[in-house]
Amino acid sequence: MREIEAGVGQISLVDHHVHGALREDVGRETLESSLTESDRPIPGWMTQFDSPLGFAVRRWCAPVLGLERHASAENYVARRAELGAREVNRRLLSAAGVGHYLLDTGYRGDAILDLAGMTEAASAPVGEIVRLETVAEDLAVSGVTARDFVRRYPEVLAERTATSAGLKSIVAYRHGFGFDPCRPDGPETEAAAGEWLRAVETTGTARVEDPVLLRFLLWSGLDRGLPLQLHTGYGDPDLALDRCDPLLLTPWLKLAEPSKVDVMLLHCYPYHRQAGYLAQVFPHVYFDVGLAVNHTGVSSAAVLAESLELAPFAKILFSTDAWGPAELHYLGALLWRRGMSRVLGTWAADGDVSPADALRVARMIGAGNARRVYRLPG
Amino acid sequence: MREIEAGVGQISLVDHHVHGALREDVGRETLESSLTESDRPIPGWMTQFDSPLGFAVRRWCAPVLGLERHASAENYVARRAELGAREVNRRLLSAAGVGHYLLDTGYRGDAILDLAGMTEAASAPVGEIVRLETVAEDLAVSGVTARDFVRRYPEVLAERTATSAGLKSIVAYRHGFGFDPCRPDGPETEAAAGEWLRAVETTGTARVEDPVLLRFLLWSGLDRGLPLQLHTGYGDPDLALDRCDPLLLTPWLKLAEPSKVDVMLLHCYPYHRQAGYLAQVFPHVYFDVGLAVNHTGVSSAAVLAESLELAPFAKILFSTDAWGPAELHYLGALLWRRGMSRVLGTWAADGDVSPADALRVARMIGAGNARRVYRLPG
Amino acid sequence: MREIEAGVGQISLVDHHVHGALREDVGRETLESSLTESDRPIPGWMTQFDSPLGFAVRRWCAPVLGLERHASAENYVARRAELGAREVNRRLLSAAGVGHYLLDTGYRGDAILDLAGMTEAASAPVGEIVRLETVAEDLAVSGVTARDFVRRYPEVLAERTATSAGLKSIVAYRHGFGFDPCRPDGPETEAAAGEWLRAVETTGTARVEDPVLLRFLLWSGLDRGLPLQLHTGYGDPDLALDRCDPLLLTPWLKLAEPSKVDVMLLHCYPYHRQAGYLAQVFPHVYFDVGLAVNHTGVSSAAVLAESLELAPFAKILFSTDAWGPAELHYLGALLWRRGMSRVLGTWAADGDVSPADALRVARMIGAGNARRVYRLPG
Repeated sequence: MREIEAGVGQISLVDHHVHGALREDVGRETLESSLTESDRPIPGWMTQFDSPLGFAVRRWCAPVLGLERHASAENYVARRAELGAREVNRRLLSAAGVGHYLLDTGYRGDAILDLAGMTEAASAPVGEIVRLETVAEDLAVSGVTARDFVRRYPEVLAERTATSAGLKSIVAYRHGFGFDPCRPDGPETEAAAGEWLRAVETTGTARVEDPVLLRFLLWSGLDRGLPLQLHTGYGDPDLALDRCDPLLLTPWLKLAEPSKVDVMLLHCYPYHRQAGYLAQVFPHVYFDVGLAVNHTGVSSAAVLAESLELAPFAKILFSTDAWGPAELHYLGALLWRRGMSRVLGTWAADGDVSPADALRVARMIGAGNARRVYRLPG
Repeated sequence: MREIEAGVGQISLVDHHVHGALREDVGRETLESSLTESDRPIPGWMTQFDSPLGFAVRRWCAPVLGLERHASAENYVARRAELGAREVNRRLLSAAGVGHYLLDTGYRGDAILDLAGMTEAASAPVGEIVRLETVAEDLAVSGVTARDFVRRYPEVLAERTATSAGLKSIVAYRHGFGFDPCRPDGPETEAAAGEWLRAVETTGTARVEDPVLLRFLLWSGLDRGLPLQLHTGYGDPDLALDRCDPLLLTPWLKLAEPSKVDVMLLHCYPYHRQAGYLAQVFPHVYFDVGLAVNHTGVSSAAVLAESLELAPFAKILFSTDAWGPAELHYLGALLWRRGMSRVLGTWAADGDVSPADALRVARMIGAGNARRVYRLPG
Repeated sequence: MREIEAGVGQISLVDHHVHGALREDVGRETLESSLTESDRPIPGWMTQFDSPLGFAVRRWCAPVLGLERHASAENYVARRAELGAREVNRRLLSAAGVGHYLLDTGYRGDAILDLAGMTEAASAPVGEIVRLETVAEDLAVSGVTARDFVRRYPEVLAERTATSAGLKSIVAYRHGFGFDPCRPDGPETEAAAGEWLRAVETTGTARVEDPVLLRFLLWSGLDRGLPLQLHTGYGDPDLALDRCDPLLLTPWLKLAEPSKVDVMLLHCYPYHRQAGYLAQVFPHVYFDVGLAVNHTGVSSAAVLAESLELAPFAKILFSTDAWGPAELHYLGALLWRRGMSRVLGTWAADGDVSPADALRVARMIGAGNARRVYRLPG
């Protein structure tokens, strides 16, 4: 067990789906709001610190900030303010032991560190993951005709991702997975784009929700040829969770298979067993349980154990999906190491797997698989 | 571990969803039928005692009745008859350690103790939970026009629940959750009521199944303003389990949110992880795994562990959903204490949570959250 | 724990759903392909030995072939070739300790041992399970009119299954469970048969996919009166997993109940909790987690534990669903014994269940229930 724990502790992880750490100091309210997927105000009769994730912050992050384990929420918040955002980031990011980050820059970039900021704060190389929908929305507000939107989107995507590691779709949030899996044809796409662009002009804001357009983006993403991440499962209440079961993607995954583009199913909870099935039967499908590890806290070992039930070990990845507080960047890595050590250590202790194989599995999932798929050095 | 176990053992529980204990002595056949959600006769080649719940009765209830643990089913049934219903109720209900019951009085009230009977048998305060559908059916058989039904239902509900702790909907049983989430308008409701009342007159029995009427009841329940319980997940074969995934309530939960009425998702198994998600992201959503704790018996600790994965601890409740044999009232409490002690004790023993926090979580889930939501004294 | 383990180890199992072992020697590529439900070529950058099932082969089968535990894949494949198919089959099948096999002969029978071959290789009685679809496809290619197809199918089925132990449907693969549950009428069936037979004549191949015909086969199967197995849940990518949730069969199960035919839900993963619910509430419904035990390898104890949560113990069965490499016949039995010993041994060690009851449960699930349902001697 100790041998496995030590070995897993030394893995230089690749966090293949993560966002930037906070730029500035935040107060307790903002911090608490970042410890839940709820976007509602936290009611006065409760605190988000009384949750698996909140307990994990007090248990594991407190010592990194120089406090006792299980420090009170009050003391934790005070100490965080005392140290300041820069020092908090430095301590937690370096404690995470992540050797390479792939940063999704498409969500509320103003509040968090960008590629350069994360590279400096984490002292590690940082690649970029570009959201298909963000590129489309940027193009829409630039003032373009429907015909030009359809023609230029692939070009703009290629330019925008010239040095990117991968793409991401949030069709889960915008429609769910019950869409027609086929590539939409030109006239159909142009008609949908025309309707959308008129709405953009009227409202001054661009949020792509039309299923024809969302499919056009997905297929354009496949054409681009980079690994394509999809949010699946658990997320904020902007999505309908039952429509985000990755199994609902099966028809599209079959159509996407000939493109040879690797499809990375993110998070997946509570449908991670379903994701394991998809990763077993389709050569181009991978998955992680990123977001769920942080939010299930002390119970994350059970989720990780389930993620190891069915898929070949070459098809499972590590990510944190951390956004904002560097606590999430640190805990995502810490809880993964802790949970994997427990699960793989038990396998080895019971004689089911050799210690060498157990460690090899941890290295594949923690770094090796991502390095292969995204063609990262090292 | 022992400290946690002792502390959890001393919690005066609030069973926020339960039914009355049996009034009279029952034979083996009736007893066995109460140990399953099946409403079919138990085949001659099996006994319901050979189940997780049946094993739990022989293990835990036998000593309360003065038998050895693991007593045979024959001896158990004989001893039960020897003691008589009154003494069996007294022993098992007092062993449960429940300090406050909220009693759903809407199902087969003739066979079980009513509010006064439970108050006496359990020596504890008992509040009432009123079923929306039962109030509607009582009104329908009273001889009322469709227009009057629509006008008077809210009034009758208010009268019937003047001193109640909460409401309950069994739309799960009557239609499932795939309903139009919007409040139905007056003419639509009146038309549906007219059709139903004609059927009631013809058949002499009232069972509300029309989705328009069920929605009218739900929305009238929200107007009433009391905490609103919904059966979700596992139950008898009168429901279609796949239509009782609480995620299917998401659109309605969003529309119900502005009412500020607390919505209590009951049971939820095997969709309790999905319920944990809803309880995390929506401030007005709570859940329990009541019925599943009893029926999974020795495995209930695993179900409880999963119920603690995602939701803030302020959003999880304890219930037994016991109906009939007081074995269910006792086991629901015993298995909850045993399972929570094991899960929280492991958390504390592994250093993930402080013993004080572990006990605090047990007290919130076992009593405090229900006292806050239902505004109970103590 | 040791007492339970020893007792479970001595059970002469009934594998109620299995296929033949390989007839001939196979190379590494074919062997690896048999360790996954994927029907795609295994990519060059991975090996199927790096999976829970692959690890289990190296851990448990290697010693049976005279190698060290955790032997490398290379050494394993070389040793297998050295011993030859006949000796490999003899060693692994006798190590499985299965006392009775029920063989599904309807899938790729050319590559695997038939009834006589298995009887000899395993030194155990072998009964037959006949696929409804295979009988229909054989009849279709024999040159028959639509009217004769409808009239003769029940007769041919009766002849083909004169000495069979049971029937099997793969409607999961051919359509999924979202079908009209009612028995189709004669004209409707004849029309569908006509269309299909014309296609059979044109293409020269018969694969029944029409939902009307599939329902006709199911209902004809119920008429035949033998226990009826249905593939549910996990399988190869020829199925859409979300359409194979056994809960979707609920309407058909209700209509089938009066026939008194026992319905055996196979595999069920990841919907095995849902299957446990169906087995609890419907007297004629049984289930196993066959295929999932092999493929989850070291994690199979967790799947088995979940399969024991809700159903009466008289309604759960053992199977391996092994097809091809005798490693699967052996591991299915070995992992079941190992997982059940762990789960039931923990129950007994914690005092929740008596050791005698724990062993009794193992014997019911491992053999007794199948002997009762299929009316096997012993």
